[in-house]
Order: sequence, then structure tokens, then C-alpha cells
Amino acid sequence: MRILLINPNISASVSELIDAEAKRSASADTAIQTVTASFGVAYIETRFEALIGAYAAAQLAGEHAGNYDAVVVAAFGDPGLTGLKEVLPCPVVGLTQAALASACLLGNRISIVAISRRIRAWYQETVDSYGLGSRLVSIRSLDEPLPNIGSVQEDKAASLLATANLCVSEDGADVIILAGAPLAGLARSLSGKLPVPVVDGVSSAVRHAETLIRLNAGQTTIGSFSPPPQKPNAGLPTSIDTLLTNGHQRLQANLKDAS
Amino acid sequence: MRILLINPNISASVSELIDAEAKRSASADTAIQTVTASFGVAYIETRFEALIGAYAAAQLAGEHAGNYDAVVVAAFGDPGLTGLKEVLPCPVVGLTQAALASACLLGNRISIVAISRRIRAWYQETVDSYGLGSRLVSIRSLDEPLPNIGSVQEDKAASLLATANLCVSEDGADVIILAGAPLAGLARSLSGKLPVPVVDGVSSAVRHAETLIRLNAGQTTIGSFSPPPQKPNAGLPTSIDTLLTNGHQRLQANLKDAS
Amino acid sequence: MRILLINPNISASVSELIDAEAKRSASADTAIQTVTASFGVAYIETRFEALIGAYAAAQLAGEHAGNYDAVVVAAFGDPGLTGLKEVLPCPVVGLTQAALASACLLGNRISIVAISRRIRAWYQETVDSYGLGSRLVSIRSLDEPLPNIGSVQEDKAASLLATANLCVSEDGADVIILAGAPLAGLARSLSGKLPVPVVDGVSSAVRHAETLIRLNAGQTTIGSFSPPPQKPNAGLPTSIDTLLTNGHQRLQANLKDAS
Amino acid sequence: MRILLINPNISASVSELIDAEAKRSASADTAIQTVTASFGVAYIETRFEALIGAYAAAQLAGEHAGNYDAVVVAAFGDPGLTGLKEVLPCPVVGLTQAALASACLLGNRISIVAISRRIRAWYQETVDSYGLGSRLVSIRSLDEPLPNIGSVQEDKAASLLATANLCVSEDGADVIILAGAPLAGLARSLSGKLPVPVVDGVSSAVRHAETLIRLNAGQTTIGSFSPPPQKPNAGLPTSIDTLLTNGHQRLQANLKDAS
Amino acid sequence: MRILLINPNISASVSELIDAEAKRSASADTAIQTVTASFGVAYIETRFEALIGAYAAAQLAGEHAGNYDAVVVAAFGDPGLTGLKEVLPCPVVGLTQAALASACLLGNRISIVAISRRIRAWYQETVDSYGLGSRLVSIRSLDEPLPNIGSVQEDKAASLLATANLCVSEDGADVIILAGAPLAGLARSLSGKLPVPVVDGVSSAVRHAETLIRLNAGQTTIGSFSPPPQKPNAGLPTSIDTLLTNGHQRLQANLKDAS
Amino acid sequence: MRILLINPNISASVSELIDAEAKRSASADTAIQTVTASFGVAYIETRFEALIGAYAAAQLAGEHAGNYDAVVVAAFGDPGLTGLKEVLPCPVVGLTQAALASACLLGNRISIVAISRRIRAWYQETVDSYGLGSRLVSIRSLDEPLPNIGSVQEDKAASLLATANLCVSEDGADVIILAGAPLAGLARSLSGKLPVPVVDGVSSAVRHAETLIRLNAGQTTIGSFSPPPQKPNAGLPTSIDTLLTNGHQRLQANLKDAS
Repeated sequence: MRILLINPNISASVSELIDAEAKRSASADTAIQTVTASFGVAYIETRFEALIGAYAAAQLAGEHAGNYDAVVVAAFGDPGLTGLKEVLPCPVVGLTQAALASACLLGNRISIVAISRRIRAWYQETVDSYGLGSRLVSIRSLDEPLPNIGSVQEDKAASLLATANLCVSEDGADVIILAGAPLAGLARSLSGKLPVPVVDGVSSAVRHAETLIRLNAGQTTIGSFSPPPQKPNAGLPTSIDTLLTNGHQRLQANLKDAS
Repeated sequence: MRILLINPNISASVSELIDAEAKRSASADTAIQTVTASFGVAYIETRFEALIGAYAAAQLAGEHAGNYDAVVVAAFGDPGLTGLKEVLPCPVVGLTQAALASACLLGNRISIVAISRRIRAWYQETVDSYGLGSRLVSIRSLDEPLPNIGSVQEDKAASLLATANLCVSEDGADVIILAGAPLAGLARSLSGKLPVPVVDGVSSAVRHAETLIRLNAGQTTIGSFSPPPQKPNAGLPTSIDTLLTNGHQRLQANLKDAS
Repeated sequence: MRILLINPNISASVSELIDAEAKRSASADTAIQTVTASFGVAYIETRFEALIGAYAAAQLAGEHAGNYDAVVVAAFGDPGLTGLKEVLPCPVVGLTQAALASACLLGNRISIVAISRRIRAWYQETVDSYGLGSRLVSIRSLDEPLPNIGSVQEDKAASLLATANLCVSEDGADVIILAGAPLAGLARSLSGKLPVPVVDGVSSAVRHAETLIRLNAGQTTIGSFSPPPQKPNAGLPTSIDTLLTNGHQRLQANLKDAS
Repeated sequence: MRILLINPNISASVSELIDAEAKRSASADTAIQTVTASFGVAYIETRFEALIGAYAAAQLAGEHAGNYDAVVVAAFGDPGLTGLKEVLPCPVVGLTQAALASACLLGNRISIVAISRRIRAWYQETVDSYGLGSRLVSIRSLDEPLPNIGSVQEDKAASLLATANLCVSEDGADVIILAGAPLAGLARSLSGKLPVPVVDGVSSAVRHAETLIRLNAGQTTIGSFSPPPQKPNAGLPTSIDTLLTNGHQRLQANLKDAS
Repeated sequence: MRILLINPNISASVSELIDAEAKRSASADTAIQTVTASFGVAYIETRFEALIGAYAAAQLAGEHAGNYDAVVVAAFGDPGLTGLKEVLPCPVVGLTQAALASACLLGNRISIVAISRRIRAWYQETVDSYGLGSRLVSIRSLDEPLPNIGSVQEDKAASLLATANLCVSEDGADVIILAGAPLAGLARSLSGKLPVPVVDGVSSAVRHAETLIRLNAGQTTIGSFSPPPQKPNAGLPTSIDTLLTNGHQRLQANLKDAS
Repeated sequence: MRILLINPNISASVSELIDAEAKRSASADTAIQTVTASFGVAYIETRFEALIGAYAAAQLAGEHAGNYDAVVVAAFGDPGLTGLKEVLPCPVVGLTQAALASACLLGNRISIVAISRRIRAWYQETVDSYGLGSRLVSIRSLDEPLPNIGSVQEDKAASLLATANLCVSEDGADVIILAGAPLAGLARSLSGKLPVPVVDGVSSAVRHAETLIRLNAGQTTIGSFSPPPQKPNAGLPTSIDTLLTNGHQRLQANLKDAS
């Protein structure tokens, strides 16, 4: 199995964290490739930054079209995820969606630990958009500047553990999600130090992507996740044009099969 | 007052409809400018197309920065709207958000009439994201190919009226929203032919934009709609870089004022 | 355009505040008339007081029938609003509904600042009845006796500002509503002193009433906001009887048109 | 125990139905008194009619103050109910609230059978206001003119039974509420003819009122159901003034007790 | 009327509290019988303990089949309640469901006072399962070990009163439920000491059971509360086999009647 | 990895289907053991049958304690699942919870295809209890007697496919869950015959159980999924007593570690 992880941000140091955790988590026969956006911001905290990251993720997905069995959008908040599901013919998993799937299997009341105050509104809206707002009991965050996004999990280790403990003692969380690609892998070291299970987005996404590949549940040819209907377009980068064109060809092939 | 209407799609014929209805709706002293995306698709029906439209809307907003008192994202589904609210120092209104505001003032149970089946999922998710899912009783749509997006309101006039009537008789709608920029202005001709009020997105957006300019409710300098915090970025088009830079300068100025 | 503002309470001093803010907010060609209830209480804090205010509002609407293009129920909590929409042939706007429409266009997370602890349950139930409970993050209030309802915005200026700031810092509000007709106009002076936009009910109501008049979205002749079906009645004051009779005549006229 | 049933409408024939069912349902030692509004409409179908009925109910409650241990607002939709709870020192029960309490004890999925199409919106909003919207699976109704409101349960017996059966077969209802005071007593004759339990508002209200009297759960002196705080009032009918004055005296007495 | 109260736990001391409060609450002509589980735990705080209690409750119901007109599952959290409603031909009431019915009639915002921190999650999930999560404003609890479950209401009297007062002052509760069979009867002594009504589960359940017997709303023969369809079974205790067999015979009899 | 699948029903033929699909789905190094209840019913359709199955599942879990790394409750509706999570020191997965996790990763709008009408209420309540009611667009079912539960997927193949197609065409489902252990493995043959992905509970449960074992997210020692606090018990079967005792020992060990 070949899984492509897309970092929709420009931080190569975060891509390294993602890639390392993905490789630690994947099955032996899974090939991991992690790619980094060529344009965008260092990390996504807001809706506008997510808008940019979504477009960058789409371009990366199109550039690497055909070289993978599943795609992971490797940023919390899942920029571009639901759009990419329409145009890619393989499973597409986001860190938030994957971490929530794990957390829902481990407990009822879920808390998220995030790396900045500002990021919380975007995360809340993401969870709400998945219909899981009632499962989320809190989003707590670090509250200090992050001088180096690539080393935040070491620099702020004590704060992150303390914050997670507050989710349990104050908010009654059954399970904690450590949110944000910069925290990739931290759950491994915190497991056992917290009184409830702790979930990581990257390892969840890689494992769930493998599961979806194996379940082989079938393509979408009708409905809201089928490829966009053919219509005029203009001025699109080749990568995105490829995704639309490939999607349209799948639709055509299906129509032919059905007739 | 100067209002910029952004058509995030490439259809000049739809921009003309938008522009005409905006000018019919605006106050005498309001200047209307409608701009059209240089890249994208003919009209947005899906999440992926909305991802493209959001990026196009952001570029247009940045290219015209400083030349308007309010911005209207002139596509139903409001691509890019919540992101643009973070970076623009003026009111930003979307057709869906504006039509819902009008409809909420006119009735309790709202139906949407749309131009294609496929578009319904995206509209539903947009309304849900505004917390107004409980007000929406149905989304009904045309169910035939649209040969010419610029003339759909004439070509399908009878179907659209029949569909709106079903929203009343079958779904108990108190108020109807005619959704989609290609239907801009249709509400004027249907008003009086339906047994409930009928709302148009463009005229609602222009009027609400004027209201927000007049209310002059104040800038956001803290919280989820304040400009994104400064952080490294790379490879961005000038238009988008401008929005981030201007936003950051506003934040700096506010910090100075507060100190 | 002629807009009638109904103060469903007996406080002439509050009517003056309402009238002044309405005139400041209205377009140049809009005539504002503010009327005051001849029976009732000084200001509405509870469901029982709202029941009285609703009846008073209905009487005032009936007494002035035919002299206006839109009606504003000028008390927060909107006493009688949904009932009046059934019997009046013009747009009817309430302060809560109008302020929420403005707030929904300006941010996602809304807080309300109110003038007394007791009033909060009634406001919460009003917002919930509009399906907007998920948008409301807090209702905070003054917590001291109000010796003079007509001067509360000056007497308690510092407390009100501090309370609004808590909505931002503690509750994460994106936008603040200053609730209660006695605070009419306060938003003008607070705008710029708060880190998020601040919304006033009276100015919102006047502006949205103008918009609805201009949109001219059509009458309701079927469904839950059409006039009550004709049936025996007895003992009603002339004003209320007028509203029922006029409504019934509109229904009859429509039936004739349709046949 | 003395229970006052208030018919907030002017139909003496409906009051007779209410009174008869109340007496059939009450315990041997319970005295039933049913009073009829001197002003209002024949029966309530709409929000505006409910506004009138609420005011009439308040006047009747005030006129009979002190002569009962519990009050029943004997119209579905519960006009004035939550307001009266604030000012009366005894339990106050509405037909909708009572029928829902019975239905919630008998099944999970509840349907309402109503006497007119128009009435459904008002009922839905009433159920929603009690937070029970998720329990309600349908409101079905008769769909023909009602020549005589006092004999609707005989005149439309077959239609009502057929409608109730549709709630079971089509909507999956576990329990049926026969809604509207004009149907008082019908559940007695339908019980056994339907495949699920069937609930009547009047008998539920009388029985639950007796239970609340016996449980003697205590007065409200703090919070949203305590009497309205004292404030200036004017022009009120004696009956309503009595309710406010009595409420205020209870508050004063409690403050003295607490000090 | 004969009412069977089932204590699904092994604590005879709690059964005595239940029995005493049931007899104090019942009408003069009601016979109360309280039975205690022969297997299980001392009191139920968790989902797993509730799973055991549900099975014990079912066995007790089957052992006493035919000797009662209504059954009360006399533990908060209502273990086995919805299952027993399917197989018993009489009303079945749980303490939580009964207390909520009383509380919903007395106020809008409900708080629960519980005897242990751990028990709160189970109670919350029970209330949510009844669709009443939006009415519940808090669950507060004692936070100390309970040396003697039979005397907790005396041992912790002051803590329980203080906790209830916090529900009013901090959470805005309109009405308090004292939760847990070990608190049976405490509401009698607290009534009048709290500023809002206070509700007891056992007395509510007994009174509501009497009401349901009197309302005689009819059996369920179709839908989700009708007896389970006949199918192979094996290895069941006689008591449970009896419930399934009796249920099946009722279904058969109904089919015959209908044919 | 050793995974125990518990069939909480007595049907050995269904256990064979479960076992076969589990072995097809598991990784090469995973050992699958499927056990069948010694008491209970042929298959679970109702709340009362689920109550029995939950107790049977608990006994089986206790009898095999210590021989597995994860447990699957192999019935749709997940009888006993949340209780078992408290007492078992390893991941516990139910078919419904697992199928929903897969479905949430594959689409937004989920439909369930079930084997009988009666079973739908129980499934709906299960999905609602997981907070996912808003994601579920329909539960459709076969509507004929099932002569042989072990061969239902062959006997009713055409009906099941037709029912699944209705979920797409009528309800707008993005993804279909084939619900019920008797349908184990059917998704493999339907994949590609439906225009949307189709999900099976057993394969999802096995794969997600493997993922949770690998993620090794940590034990629960505080909160609602920690073992029940020690308290007196009596009369329990050894298997269940073992679960309580083991749980208590884990709690004690954790307290010692923490001190």
C-alpha cells in the first residue's frame, strides 16, 4: 500500500515529524511519502489560512495523482479534505477526522489539546461540521508564542501534559486528542502518563487509511462525493485541472458501464 | 458607499446578472463594482469547486484591496466568506448568509430552491455551518441539465415556480430562497406569484452590506475573526500576500493603540 | 418609508431613547413614529411581563393600522412579534430578531449583554425559539438594581463595557449584542472601545425594516404566517378586532384572485 | 384538592367537554371548576390567537386567585402557561405539557393528531420550546373545515382514527396525543382501537396537577419562575394587577424570612 | 392498584427507604410491594453495573409477573426500563423518567444532585437518551466516599443541601432532582429549604404509575414497544422466559383479534 | 494480536459467518476466536433482547478474560459495549460503532440497511447514543419474515441490494452500512454493485480493533470508563465477578503507582 501524506503548509520541519510518525505507525508493507506545500504559511490557525492550505493540498494531490492508494491531508482542521474526496478515486483521510474516529472508539467525551488559542475556533467548526460537536467536551490550548513550530512538542512538553490533565479533571474527558501536525508522535510519549487514552492524528490517519484500502468499500459514482459534473473551466493549474478531468473520465466510464 | 461584488466563477454572463440586480437593489448613493474570477469553473456545485472558488475570491479581494467599503462574495454557498472576514477590514457578506438573514426576518420555516440536484449537499452543509439547519425545511432543485447558465432563470422559469410551490405545499415553507447567483433578480418577478415571500441572495447581500456599513459596528482585533497572527509564509500571490500583510499591520496598530 | 416603532412598555423615557436612535439610524427618506403602551410595566424582564407586553403591542399595532410600511416591536425578547407577523400586511421586525440578523452577518459566536440577571432566561428562550441557540455563547448581565430605566446606559456605562469585555475574553464572543431598548444607541459610543463589533437592536431593526420594505418579497397567503382563518370571536378591543378583520379580508381577496 | 381549568377561548361548548373529562379523570376528593374566557376567539390555531388567549388566561387566573390548589390552562399550545407559572403560587399545568409528560412515560416516539392543518406550526413550536422536538415524530391533522368546534370529535371520528393510525404505520409512533381541547375525552373511546397508547390532554393535566399538589415540591423564590421583580406599572386590569401584586408580596415575605 | 417496585440492587437498606417513601406517596387504595435483587451490586454507578442491574430487574419482573398493575424500576438511571416496557403488559416507570416528568412540569432548567462523581456520566447519558439533554443544566454530586449507602441522606444532609443550592446560584436551575434511590424521601425534608422546587424519584414514580394506570391509555401491539417477535431462544431463566412467552402470546392474541 | 469476537446470541450459524468474515479481514498475524452465547435468543431486534445479549456478552468476556488483546461485541446495536469498556483492560469494539467509524471516514450522509422493520428503533437509538444521529439519513429494512437467520444474505440478496439503492436514490446517502451480524461479509459482494461505498460491521470491527491495539493509546484509570469503584456485591456468576475484581485490582494498582 502506498499512502501519500500532504502537508498543506510550507514547514519542512513539520513534514519531517509527520513523515517519521507515519512510518512508525504504518504496517510493514506500506510505503509512506510525505510532501510539503510550495506555497502557504508555516502552520494553519485560521479559516483564511485554511483556505490557502486547501488550495495547496489540492495542487499537491493533483501533482502526485496516480501514485498512491490513499491520501492523508496532514493538517488538523482537514483543509480541503471534503473537496478532495470528490475528485480522488481513493480513500482520503484528514488528521481531525481520523483522530475523531479513534477517539470515538475509545471513549464518549472527547477533549482536544491544541497549540494556540487562536486555532480553537477553527477546530471547533471542523468538529461541528462532522456532526460530532456533542462528543467534544473541550478544546484547551497552549497560550504562549511558538518560537519554533518544529520543536513545539519538546519545548512545551510540560504545558501540553498539564493541559491534557485539565481536560480530564475539569472537563470530564474520557479521551484526549493531541491536535496539530506539529504534535505528531507526542501521543506515544504521553501514553501512560495520562489517566485516559491519548490519540494522535497522524498515526490514526495512517492506520485508518490502511483499513479503508483493505475494506475496499467501493467508489462513489452518484451523490455528493462523486466527481463534479463536467462544465466549462478556465485558468486552472495543471494539477487541479488533472483532478477535474480524471474525475470526469471516471463519471463517463461509469455511465458507459451502466448503459 | 462602494460595494465590491466578487463572482468567484468565470461566467461573465452570471456576473452581468449579479451586477444588474445589485444596481437595481442598491441605494442611490451606492457604487457597485462586480468582478469575475480569472480562473475556476462556470458555476459551483460541489465542495471541490467551492475550494477553487474560495481561492479565486481571495485573490480578487486582494487585487481590489482598499477600493470598497464592503465586499459581497456573490456565489451561493459563500466560498471563502469566513476566511475573508478575517483579513478584510470591512463587512463581507455572502449570498447564502444574506439570504438567510432576510428569510429569518420574514418567516420561520425556510426552503431553498436550487438549480441542480448536485448542489444541494453543498448548500445544506453551508446552512448547517451557520447553525441554521433547524430553520431549513427543504432544499428542492431543478433536475435537468443546464445548457446555458446565464439564461437558466428564463429557460427554466416554469420549473422554478413549480418547485417553489412544492416547498410551500409539501414542506410547509414560510419563505423561499432562490439560490444561486444565476437566479439573481428572479425573486422580483416571482414576488406575488407565490403564496409566501421569496428572497434573492444578491439584493439581500447588497442591502445588508449597506446596513453593516451604516451600523459601523466596529473592527475585530481579538478572537476568531481578527487577522491571522503573523508567521512565516512563502510563494503566495501578491493579492493574498497583501491581505495577510494588511491584516497584520492592523493587528500591530491595535497593539500599539492599546499600549 | 414610514416605520412604526412600538414600545410595548409604559416608559416614555425609553420611548425617547428608541425614537432618537431610530431617527439617527434611518435613511433620510424614512419617517419614524414611536408609540408607547398605555398599559403594562416599566420594562420587561419575565415571561409574564412579556405576555402583557405582547397584548399591548398588538393593541398599538391595531390602533395605528394602515399608517406604516413596516412595524418594529421595540423591546428585546420581541413580545408579540410572531403573532403580529400573521395579522399585519407589512414587515414586522423585533429588536432581538434584528440584532441577531446583524450579529450573524458579523461573526459566528454571539454574546448578549443584558441589563438584569432576571432577564437572561427570557432572552435565552427567545434566541432558542429562533433556532439560534447554537450561535449564542453567553448572556451576561448587570447585577445591580436599576433606579432609573431611562438612564441605565449612562448610569452603568463602565459596568456594561466591562461585561462586554468579559464576553470576549471569557466566552470567546466574535460579536456583542447590547440587549434591551433602554440601551438603544449605546453601541454607537462603545464601537471602537471593544475588540469585536457591537450591535444595537433599534438601529438594526430600523435598517432591516427598510431593507425588507425595499426587497418587497411578497405577502403570505398560505401557511403559518398567513392571517388566522375566520372564526367566531367576542369581546375583543377594536384595535385587535381590526387586525383580525383586515387579515381575514386579505385572505378572502386572495382566494378570489386565485379563483 | 381544588383545580381550576381555564378555557382561554370563548367556546362554552368546549368548556363543557373539558369540564366533563376533567371530572371523569379527577380523584374522588378533587373539586373541578372550569371557566371560560369572556373575550377571544372560538379556538386557537395561530400565534396571534394564542397571544390573545394568553392574556385572557391571565385575567381568568387573576379573577379566581386564591380559590384553587392548581391551575390548568385548558388549551393545547399552552397559551400563557410559562408566564402564569411565575405569578401563581401553585402548580400550573398546560394541556400540551401534560400530554407530553404522559406520552414520554409511555413511549419514545410521539405523534400528535390535531384538528386543523393551520394549527400544526403552533403545536410544533410549543413542543420545540419544551426541548422535546426530538421526541416528536409527526403532527398530522384533519384537513377539512370544522363547522362545529364543540362536536368535532363525533363529526370527524373516523378521520381522527384514520389519522392516528397513519402516525403509527407511516411515522413509527409509539404513542399518540390527541391534541386540542375540543378532543377532550376522545382518548377514552379510542383506547383499544389503536395499536399504541393514546393520550388525552385534559385527563393528563388533571392527574398531573393532582400529583404536583401531592408532591408539594416547594415554591420558587429565586430564578426564572419566581415572581417578577417589583417595578412601576400602569393601566392594568385588576385581575392582572392582583397577580403581580401577590407575586411581589411573596417575594417580600421570602426576603424577610431569609433575613 | 398494585404497584411493584423493583430494587435492581442487593441493598435491603435501600429497599426499605424506597418502600417507605412509596407508601408515603401512594394513594390510600394503592398496594405497594418492594422487591430486592438477589444478585448484583450495592448500588449502581456505572454502565457495567447498570447492565447487571437491568438483568436483575428483568428477572424480578418475570418472577412476580401478573401480580401488579404497574412496575417501578426503582433505581436512578432506569436499568432495564425500556426493555421491560416491551415485555410487560402494564405501565413501567423508572425513577429518572418519573423525576424528569415531574421536573418538566415544574420548571424549564433542571439540575440533578447525585451521590457520587462517578455516577454523573451514567445519569447524563440516561437523560440524553430521553431527548432531554437540553433541559438539564447541571449534574452536581457529593464527592466523598459513602460508608453506608442506606444512611447517605442523613450522613451527608448538609452537603446535599449545599450542592442543591449551587445548582440554583451557579447553574440557574429552576428545579432540582435528588437522584438515586438512596435519597428516597429526602425531597420531603428539603422542600421549603431551597428557593426552587425539589423532586424525588420514588414519589414521582409511584404517582405517575398511578396516573398511567388510571389513564388506561392502551396496550402496544405494533411498533418498537410491542413484545419481541417470536424466535428461537435457549438457556434463559424461567422468569425471563416467562416474559418473552407472555409477550408472544399477547401478540398472537392481537393478531387473532385483528383477523 | 489475539481478537475475541463475542456473538451475544445463540445462533451458531451466525457465529460462523462472523468468524469467516473476521478471518478474511484480519491481518496475517492476527488470531481470531469467535464464541457464541450459551443463553439468549437467535438474533437481537429489540431493547429487551439486547438487555439479555448484553448480559450474555459480559459473561463470555469474563469467561475468556486474559486471552485476547481486543474484544469485538459482534452484534449490531452493540449490546453491553459501553459497560464492557469499563471492565476490560483492552480495546472493546462493537459492530455499530466500528461501522460508523468507517462510514464517517467515507462519506457524510450515512444510511443503514437492516434485516427487519422491528430492529430499526433499536439501531436508531444506538446511533443517537453515539451522538451521530445527524449523520444518519435513513434506516431501511427488509420487510418479510426471516426463515433462516444464517442464510438471510443469500435468501434476500436482491431485496438487500434494492434497499441499499433506495438509500442512495431517495435519501441521498453517501455511504451504506449493511447492519447485523447475519449480513457479515455481504459488503464484499455488493462493493461495486452500488454507486456509493458499502460498509460491513465485522470487517470494520476487526480492522479498527487491530488499529487500537497498535495505537496503544493508554488505559483509563480516571473517569467514566475506568473500572467501577469497589463496593459490596453478591450472587454474581464467576465470569462477571472476575471482571469486577480484575477491574478493581487495576484501580488499586494505579493508586499505588500514583502514590
